[in-house]
Amino acid sequence: MPTLTVDLGNRSYPILLGTAMLAKPQNFLPYIGKGRPLIVTNDRVAPHYLETLRQAVADCHPASLVLPDGESHKTLQTAGLIYDALLEGRFGRDAVLIALGGGVIGDLTGFAAATYQRGIGFIQVPTTLLAQVDSSVGGKTGVNHPLGKNMIGAFHQPLAVIADIDVLGTLPKRELVAGLAEVIKYGLLGDAPFLDWIEHHIDALLALDSAALAEAIQRSCANKARIVGLDERESGPRALLNLGHTFAHAIEAGLGYGAWLHGEAVGAGMCMAADLSCRLGWLSAADRDRAIKLIERAGLPTRLPEQLKPTDFVRLMAHDKKVLAGQLRLVLLKAIGEAVVTRDFEPSKLDETIASYCAPPYAA
Amino acid sequence: MPTLTVDLGNRSYPILLGTAMLAKPQNFLPYIGKGRPLIVTNDRVAPHYLETLRQAVADCHPASLVLPDGESHKTLQTAGLIYDALLEGRFGRDAVLIALGGGVIGDLTGFAAATYQRGIGFIQVPTTLLAQVDSSVGGKTGVNHPLGKNMIGAFHQPLAVIADIDVLGTLPKRELVAGLAEVIKYGLLGDAPFLDWIEHHIDALLALDSAALAEAIQRSCANKARIVGLDERESGPRALLNLGHTFAHAIEAGLGYGAWLHGEAVGAGMCMAADLSCRLGWLSAADRDRAIKLIERAGLPTRLPEQLKPTDFVRLMAHDKKVLAGQLRLVLLKAIGEAVVTRDFEPSKLDETIASYCAPPYAA
Repeated sequence: MPTLTVDLGNRSYPILLGTAMLAKPQNFLPYIGKGRPLIVTNDRVAPHYLETLRQAVADCHPASLVLPDGESHKTLQTAGLIYDALLEGRFGRDAVLIALGGGVIGDLTGFAAATYQRGIGFIQVPTTLLAQVDSSVGGKTGVNHPLGKNMIGAFHQPLAVIADIDVLGTLPKRELVAGLAEVIKYGLLGDAPFLDWIEHHIDALLALDSAALAEAIQRSCANKARIVGLDERESGPRALLNLGHTFAHAIEAGLGYGAWLHGEAVGAGMCMAADLSCRLGWLSAADRDRAIKLIERAGLPTRLPEQLKPTDFVRLMAHDKKVLAGQLRLVLLKAIGEAVVTRDFEPSKLDETIASYCAPPYAA
Repeated sequence: MPTLTVDLGNRSYPILLGTAMLAKPQNFLPYIGKGRPLIVTNDRVAPHYLETLRQAVADCHPASLVLPDGESHKTLQTAGLIYDALLEGRFGRDAVLIALGGGVIGDLTGFAAATYQRGIGFIQVPTTLLAQVDSSVGGKTGVNHPLGKNMIGAFHQPLAVIADIDVLGTLPKRELVAGLAEVIKYGLLGDAPFLDWIEHHIDALLALDSAALAEAIQRSCANKARIVGLDERESGPRALLNLGHTFAHAIEAGLGYGAWLHGEAVGAGMCMAADLSCRLGWLSAADRDRAIKLIERAGLPTRLPEQLKPTDFVRLMAHDKKVLAGQLRLVLLKAIGEAVVTRDFEPSKLDETIASYCAPPYAA
């Protein structure tokens, strides 16, 4: 399988994708170099893969730290546990963190790497589909704040991303489905041929067909790498990757982080983005329905959770990072495969979308 | 007075130095632009200067946050108060933090700016001599950890540094003296003519002579800007700026942060660096004595604090960031005005220096 490169000048790095990747020392040693590795993982992933990875990098005498699993632990306090382990282990600037886990572990570990002694190296070893296709690539790191998701963070690119398709075999079905939300996102926002392909292979992906998964991951990462390479710090086109995410962040904040998986919230959020795009006259009803149908076939939610009232939802959206000088920016669709970042929409149309996506008794 | 520039490509920024700087809107408005300012200061500085600065930037409707004063508050928890204020005030990525205070406020506020929503702009308004000549320039931001000073941080350059000489009039004498340690440092490490000048003007500086202070700050900042411009991320020559600092960090950690002022610890640390350089045969005894004499005339400590035992001190030094792959790197002097970063020294000589600088009953 080809290696992809995220092209960022002297911060460029490879994405290595394949099977049995975790057991191969040659996937890790070139990036650890003479550094001292600390593997950071969680208590759900550790029993499956920590020992395999420890063996692969045994020549570098790795230390390891097992954190509690879950989005509720993606906090400054948990990042503090990584700092503690580094300082208690007397790690210097030659420390290399290895993030073995899903998006939470990757974001937390990346943030600790960005901020320990003003920046050390780290390697992403994503163990969920969502992390393999999205969060491990692109250098966004961070933790949540009670008032907002990912509000504290840094851009810090990894030394390498090492994605092992085999690990998806132990992934709960719900998390596989959540990962498919981001796969579908790449098709919707900028790659119509890929969206066609996903429509034809959604059942194979849900059945964990290796060849289908490999192609989905490879095409997703290629899309992400291309967009990140254009705009590392999200001053322009990178914002397109947030299709569905402003809605999703409001869902996650409203329910409490972790109640819905991020990908689930993105699924419902993309439906809302498609709905609003249609109400604005930008997307045909047929294309709106096509997008929603695929999200539904993937097994993702296509409605807001019952607990959220329209007024709550509007308030939660106002906290999003994409609010620039008081104006909400959204990623919307001009067509399948053509997303735009815009502030130029009628607020009343957004209200209609929100009302129509809220469950009874709040629904319009 | 000329404006200096820290030359870092698209991250270049000016250092504006002069009198009555805080009251002038034109010093701030170009850097705030269309952003929303939040002034971060402490409860010692606020009564003197917060209102003046608020008036200067009144057109931008600044918010302000007053933190408790002191090195013991340079923590992740206090950074959390800045995040809270930003989120409760619904600040977006257009927020601009204005750090009004000494090194603690500058480092904390800079760290919050580096990490709020993955990086927002900030302006340094240093109110101590130490911050004006050192910590406000160069983009090092961070907080302390119980196991080490500045262990959590980021490189994040300010939009501008605005240094008002007038504010030194309200600075306690002890803090003025602490700032002189860094002024002397620039002479010792790389600018022998400046060291001569300081020797001739040390009494004027201690008497708060405005012209002398202005020249000392200007020449110090020019030295710092030059070195930072060569090496933003401290992979090479920038490490020279740590002359005396590895010793100083051990003193500060050993006593508890804040017991000695940073500059006081740097004063004693530079004496130790000069002593070790002499024991290694690199610096003449006359030049060692010349350095120590000037540090003493400035009113800085030239010995270790009584509480520290040699064994404690060695252990504390081993925690420093400059320990690379287990080997301690120090900044030492080949001559007055010529510092080097080196791992190439006999450990027994370092032990001799430590023993001779410890107070009885530990002294050799």
